[in-house]
This record gives sequence, C-alpha cells and structure tokens, in this order.
Amino acid sequence: MGRPTLVSLAKELGVSRQTVSNVLNSPHLVKPETRDRVRKAIEASGYRPNQAAQALRKQKSGTLAMRIYPSSDGIYGAVMDRFLHRLVSEARARSYNIMPITAIDDRDELQQLCALYDKGSIDGCLLSGTSEHDERPRVLAQRQIPVVTFGRPWGDDELSHYWVDVDGAGATAAATRDFLARGHERIGFVGIEAGSGPGDDRRRGWQEAMTQAQPHVDLSQMDTHGVDSIETGVSAARELVARGATAFVCPSDSLAFGALVHLRNAFPDSYQTMPVIGFDDSPVARALGMSSVGQPVEMAVHLLVEAIIAQLKDPEGTLPEPVLLQGSVTMREPVMPVSPAQE
Amino acid sequence: MGRPTLVSLAKELGVSRQTVSNVLNSPHLVKPETRDRVRKAIEASGYRPNQAAQALRKQKSGTLAMRIYPSSDGIYGAVMDRFLHRLVSEARARSYNIMPITAIDDRDELQQLCALYDKGSIDGCLLSGTSEHDERPRVLAQRQIPVVTFGRPWGDDELSHYWVDVDGAGATAAATRDFLARGHERIGFVGIEAGSGPGDDRRRGWQEAMTQAQPHVDLSQMDTHGVDSIETGVSAARELVARGATAFVCPSDSLAFGALVHLRNAFPDSYQTMPVIGFDDSPVARALGMSSVGQPVEMAVHLLVEAIIAQLKDPEGTLPEPVLLQGSVTMREPVMPVSPAQE
Repeated sequence: MGRPTLVSLAKELGVSRQTVSNVLNSPHLVKPETRDRVRKAIEASGYRPNQAAQALRKQKSGTLAMRIYPSSDGIYGAVMDRFLHRLVSEARARSYNIMPITAIDDRDELQQLCALYDKGSIDGCLLSGTSEHDERPRVLAQRQIPVVTFGRPWGDDELSHYWVDVDGAGATAAATRDFLARGHERIGFVGIEAGSGPGDDRRRGWQEAMTQAQPHVDLSQMDTHGVDSIETGVSAARELVARGATAFVCPSDSLAFGALVHLRNAFPDSYQTMPVIGFDDSPVARALGMSSVGQPVEMAVHLLVEAIIAQLKDPEGTLPEPVLLQGSVTMREPVMPVSPAQE
Repeated sequence: MGRPTLVSLAKELGVSRQTVSNVLNSPHLVKPETRDRVRKAIEASGYRPNQAAQALRKQKSGTLAMRIYPSSDGIYGAVMDRFLHRLVSEARARSYNIMPITAIDDRDELQQLCALYDKGSIDGCLLSGTSEHDERPRVLAQRQIPVVTFGRPWGDDELSHYWVDVDGAGATAAATRDFLARGHERIGFVGIEAGSGPGDDRRRGWQEAMTQAQPHVDLSQMDTHGVDSIETGVSAARELVARGATAFVCPSDSLAFGALVHLRNAFPDSYQTMPVIGFDDSPVARALGMSSVGQPVEMAVHLLVEAIIAQLKDPEGTLPEPVLLQGSVTMREPVMPVSPAQE
C-alpha cells in the first residue's frame, strides 16, 4: 500500500539501508551532509518506524491481553465493559495496546494467553473473575508470564502476583448495618452458590454485620444459594419473605432485580418499605433507581496498569503491595416498581 | 524471559541462525541429518515463530482496529459491547486480532487509525457510528487504508467502501403500523436532533407509516428533536402527550425509557394503554419488559469480518454489495412501570 520503508527510502536516496537505519538510531555514525539529506527525505516521506520491526528489536510487543466476557443478562457485564474502556485508554496513554480475547472457559483462556506470549504477541496479561482454586495465576507465574489480576487470589495465599480488588464484605456489611439502623431485623441474603470468591466475600459482610447485631440468631434461615440470575432473585426473595425477611442484601444486580420483581408483585402496596440492595451499580440499577454497591473501576484499572508496566520494565523489581479498594454504597429511594411480566 | 528464539536455538545446536530458519521455511536446503536434529530441538524447546518477525516478513500485523465508546447512560453502549465481543471471536477464528482504541472524537480516531496503519500496527479498521458529512471513510480511502463500516455512508453515495447497516426506517415503520392497528391515531416520535444518520432514518420510517395511514395530517406536531438521553425522553413525552399523543416511537432505548418514566408518573392508572417502543433491545429494555427494536449484531459482524479479510487478501478484488439487514421488532406487554425517582 505504498508505506515507505527503510529499504524504499534507501533506494530513493541511493544510500544503504544501514545508513538510513543509522540516521534514525545512531546518527553520530553518519556524515553530517548525508545525515541532513536522509533526515529531510525521511520527514518528507512520512516514514514511521515499523511497529513489528521495533517489537522484534526490543523483543516486546507493547501489547497486553485481557479476556472479555459475554454479557449474559446484560446486567453482569456492565462493570467489565467500563473496565475495558478505561483499560484501553490508560494503556494507550502509556503506549501499550490492549488485545481483548474471548474464551470458552478459564483453561481455554490460559492456553490462548500462553500461545500469544510464546509467539511474542503479548508482553503480559490482566485476569479478572478470579475464583477459588483458580489455576490461571499459578500457571502464568510458572511460565514467567507477567500477570496482574482484578480480583484476589481467593484462598491461595502463596500467590505473589499483584492484584487489586474491591472489598465486597465491607460494602455488604455497611448496607446490612444501614438496613438494621432503619429498624429491619430479619435481613435476607439472596446469595450465590458457595465457591465463587466475590460471592462468598459479599455473604461474609452480611454475616458479620448480622452476627454483631444479633449474636444469638441462626442466620442459615436468612441465607439462600443459587446461580447468579434474575430468576434466582425472584425465587430466593419469595423463600426469604416466607421466612419473615423484610430487607434483602444481594451480591449482584441481577439477583437484586429479581428480588424487586417478586416484592413488587407480592406486595404492590408496601414493597417500598422492603429495601433491596444489589452489587455493581449497573446501568440497569441506575435506570431503575435500585440501590447498589458501586466499584471504583477507574482506580482499579489505573493501579493494575501501573503495576504491570512497572513489572515489564523491571522484571526483577519488587512488586507493590496488592490493594483492596472500598466499594460505594448507593441507597436509592423509592425502591423501583418492576414489571409483573418478569415473574 | 527465556523464550527460545532462532538465535538461541542455533547457538544451542552449534549451527547457524540461517540453518534453523531453513529447517523451518526451506527444509529442502538442509541436509537430512541436520534437519532431523534441528527439528527435534525445535520441538523440545517449545519454539514458536515470533509474531513480530512474521508480521515484518509478511508486512502484515494480522490486526484490525476498532474504536470503542464509553457507555453514557449504560443503555446506548449495549449494542456495541455485543458487537465487540462477537468481533473479537469472529476475527480470532480467522487468525486476526482486534485492537480496540478509545478516542475523544472522530478526528482523534482518524488520526490514531492513520498512525497505527503507518507504523504497521494494523492492517485495516472497522468504523461504527457513521454520520452525515463523516470524513472518516473518505480520508481512510484516500490513504488506501482498508476499511469497512457498520453504518451506511449517509448522504455520500460516492463512497465505495463495504458497509453493513440495519434498516431503522423499516423497523420504526413496522412498529408505527402496529400501533396504528391497535387503534392509536396520534403517535408521537420522540426524536433525536436532525443530522445523525440513524436518527433521521428511524424518523423516516415513522413518517412514512403515518403519512400512508393519514395522508393529510401535519406530522410536525407529533415530532420532537433533542439529545439522545433519558431526560429528553421524559420532556418530549410530556410535550407530545399535551398535543394528544397516545403512543410513542423512539429511535433509542434511552429516549423510550424516559418516555415510560413520564407516562408512569402522569398516568399511574392508564399508562399501560400508551405503548412505547425503543431501539437496540438493550439489557435495560429486556429487564424492564420494554418494547424495542433489536439489531442482528452477530450477522453484521460476520459480514464485516468476511469483507475486510477478503479485501486484505486481495486488495484489487471486487467489493461485495453492501448489506442492509432487517431489525426485529419485539413488542413486550405490559409496559413496565418505572420509578418516579427518575423524573
């Protein structure tokens, strides 16, 4: 397509390829008059050093990979979309590109990341969605592939990569205390099956606040476990209401939305007195006027990008301490009426 | 980081770098015993050809750029998030990578795309959000940078790049006819300021269906223009109701959501009889049970990826005909009650 190259410039000027290269990289080696002539020709041609040539010389691609996930119900994906947009901006400001990848599962992601690294297509990667028994950070570390994670190494304290996470337990504890202060005694947790790091963490916050306020109450009656979906939210809220719950803490906006749907249908006149809070402060939550916990995604991205670039520049350097950021509890009133069509 | 290279392999085996390269690329030039020994060493080492070296040899990066947009109210961005996820998958299946970029405006995007192309970082690009007087496709074509667009070259018929778009006018006309068939006579259009290609196109469909049904009615009373936001939807619906509108066609889900908020507040007992339809079938629309027009994003991505790869493989080849895909009108009942807190 007519992009000028070192070779085409050299030919045009009647000098060697090496001379053009020297003018760019070691100008002191070139006679002043030749240097000036070649420089002018380079400027006039619009020549830019080829990125692949630079990558080859430096043995660096200037690219970081990150998996993107499909948005299942349109609620969950929202945080990671904000994450990606910010990541691309922050990385570009530091002259790095982001290569998004899609994967069937964690193992597929891991295989792709290793293959991309082996080919020199990426210099490192960011992981999100860390879970208990997550093999990804360990395998990447063994392969000496630079990695940082948005999410803690749940239950795996030996891992020594840099991570940033959001204090889910702190946020759900604060929301629970808020509901307690408003006079609610039976506060249900519309939970996710045990085993997901963030789901368990967010349950822990609710448990701690409840146990502190009501040390002798059996919490298991107020706790449910299911897949993270609107449907689970509907059925869990129904169960919890039957057991006397009047307020609901949820580790996701999908679950919170489902809980709201049930309350609206079951208590059309009084559902506004039964608060529900979700997690992620998704566009759906904001549009509905639904209470939720927001994550400081921009700060998380900033810290992760700084850390991985520092690692790439100095692989032997000391890793900074991982960071646990605070979530922001946003209570919205009145609780949103939602469509019976959803149930 | 210890990635094996041609040089390290050659050193280890006591042969020249050229010999290792020949074993990989021109094995007939190498003596059989050397060939076998080198091949075994290559396999044992886990060597993969460096992507930058291949890119340099082929003068191709295997990468396509596309701008991603921030989600303003969390509604608009949803289609493009689905688009990106699908794009990354489709491109990967064809051995291409996607490089997302962020930009302040169209001009910034254009400058970045040209710079990336000049450096050999990308082989081509995808544009979305085409508008009237869009300079991007024209400048890219002049620079001979391969480009395809999701969106028509609005009002610029001389442009000859490949595009895929969704027939907005066809979808809003179908929705308008549906409302007419249900007995609504005064159907308002909660519109976007003139000048945006898709906004005007979607208005045209409403106009055509209305003019066909009521040839002598002045439509301007039923037409509003504003920025694409929830707030505009609220105020436009208020105005249109004052002029007698009982049904509302909107070129976005943000506007439709705003219209629903107003109707819910103004007519708590009868708003369900006043249908509203949005555009994009966003997660918010699905969560609210709001009627909307869905876009066949997956098919659009597939066609665009096929077309740009064909162009890259054969720059002189004939471009396929651009494609206008049909949107899918999804009517949902009952219309979702929405929170007074939004108004």
